[in-house]
Amino acid sequence: MTAAGLPMVVPARDLPARVRIHEVGARDGLQNEKTVVPTEAKAEFIHRLADAGLTTIEATSFVHPKWVPQLADAERLFPLLDDLREVDLPVLVPNERGLDRALALGARRIAVFGSATESFAKANLNRTVDESLAMFEPVVARAKSGEGGEVHVRGYLSMCFGDPWEGPVPLAQVVRVCRALLDLGCDELSLGDTIGVATPGHVGQLLAALNEAGVPTSRIGVHFHDTYGQALANSFAALQHGVTTFDASAGGLGGCPYAKSATGNLATEDLVWMLHGLGIDTGVDLDRLTATSGWMASVLGRPSPSRTVRALSHKE
Amino acid sequence: MTAAGLPMVVPARDLPARVRIHEVGARDGLQNEKTVVPTEAKAEFIHRLADAGLTTIEATSFVHPKWVPQLADAERLFPLLDDLREVDLPVLVPNERGLDRALALGARRIAVFGSATESFAKANLNRTVDESLAMFEPVVARAKSGEGGEVHVRGYLSMCFGDPWEGPVPLAQVVRVCRALLDLGCDELSLGDTIGVATPGHVGQLLAALNEAGVPTSRIGVHFHDTYGQALANSFAALQHGVTTFDASAGGLGGCPYAKSATGNLATEDLVWMLHGLGIDTGVDLDRLTATSGWMASVLGRPSPSRTVRALSHKE
Repeated sequence: MTAAGLPMVVPARDLPARVRIHEVGARDGLQNEKTVVPTEAKAEFIHRLADAGLTTIEATSFVHPKWVPQLADAERLFPLLDDLREVDLPVLVPNERGLDRALALGARRIAVFGSATESFAKANLNRTVDESLAMFEPVVARAKSGEGGEVHVRGYLSMCFGDPWEGPVPLAQVVRVCRALLDLGCDELSLGDTIGVATPGHVGQLLAALNEAGVPTSRIGVHFHDTYGQALANSFAALQHGVTTFDASAGGLGGCPYAKSATGNLATEDLVWMLHGLGIDTGVDLDRLTATSGWMASVLGRPSPSRTVRALSHKE
Repeated sequence: MTAAGLPMVVPARDLPARVRIHEVGARDGLQNEKTVVPTEAKAEFIHRLADAGLTTIEATSFVHPKWVPQLADAERLFPLLDDLREVDLPVLVPNERGLDRALALGARRIAVFGSATESFAKANLNRTVDESLAMFEPVVARAKSGEGGEVHVRGYLSMCFGDPWEGPVPLAQVVRVCRALLDLGCDELSLGDTIGVATPGHVGQLLAALNEAGVPTSRIGVHFHDTYGQALANSFAALQHGVTTFDASAGGLGGCPYAKSATGNLATEDLVWMLHGLGIDTGVDLDRLTATSGWMASVLGRPSPSRTVRALSHKE
């Protein structure tokens, strides 16, 4: 249980009153876990996340099952979420075949997954950046055309700060791909620090450059990784620049605490602790969320890498 | 090895050009480790920290050996550091008996250890806050009186944000004890978030309150714990308020990654990654520091809880 009265609520100047957490644990998190989780447990996980107050829960991925065996059950999982009518349940869609599968199940939100660097586009999509944009074009066009009602489209962008092959990523390169994704018709972007190297000044500089290029901050989400422990400091910097959409993974799913390198997503609980301390509304019940992550850690058979989950579980 | 060109250096506005890291791994870190480290290994650790560019390295504690068996070898350790003439080597001194021991060995910097809350003063020192200040009075007075040359005195203050028994700690209470420690003659203060509950707005508010009460930021250090993952975000907030002294523990020593609750200090490496990314000079060679923490982790027989240490070690 949360210690009585803690965190103490002390707002800071010029921060948003409310933020939206885009919960990625069930998709981006589980995708990177070795233990394959049964479909029913995934459905229970997503229901518990919704019960904890999360309103945007990325549910699964319609990539080819060969590439992500952990999420090969998308067709069986998605119908189990039909009762979650108040919750947005975006799904990853790499191409038109994926879109067909998602639309057939009634998905109302999709996400495409691009790269800011040529090296990662090649490694992850086996395409150049421009070829991958060309691949997304009909996907986004069909999603927005209202075939069965208009679908909301998020454009993920990997390697927005550093790239393992190319090193630091020039701002102009990120800005160009962001603009291109918006021009295709994406409703929002998610800027990924895929290898976790960003620091707060870099975050501020990229957000300023995007603003100058006409990309409104209201359409930008940030997706930080905690590889070097920087994710929450970067989140605070993004908050100070007006960002109101934060990707995070319940319990820090996707980063194994026993791996030599913990490359996981920012833990939702650590983010919520900070936001609630700052008096920012998230709609999340931290105790319920922590209990959910503790339960999922037991399904996976190992402790959560989230510091908040470990600290609060210890207190119970 | 650090990835080439990373972190990318992107300064943020209005931050200090240089900060001093007060390295606490050899004292506060080891004190909380179960494995007793041989004196020679401690001496090697401190030498390696100095080689990595750290200039303020808290070396040991002159509390009664009964209370902290890990540091019972202070009399044997301190002379092994005689060659480190360019490095400040503060030592913890709880009372006059401890001061006698420290001065006999030629210590030039001492630290007293107070509490902002009555509950922790009682639990840790078996005294009220005012009784503990009375205990420090002759210690600080003798240190500053020039008995054998003037000695620099740091005043630690625990529970500056939250207390496990009392919950949120009122700002006025912290300000009062800070003022009292400065009035006793302390040269600098270290504000401890002992249970790791602080968030960035709270940090800013306490620093502002101290400033209003006439405590110059130049005399304030911050000592954050990563219990809820907040330490680096809080450090960034402190930087934005002009703080230039940061306590940190090499490799995150003091927080066991296998404990249910990792209540450790901020890892020096995670802090250095952020500071270097912000273009702030620390004097630290991150690769050397990481190698040192990796070596100490092997002495302790378990991996480092520092995310940066794990990420960089994995790359080697």
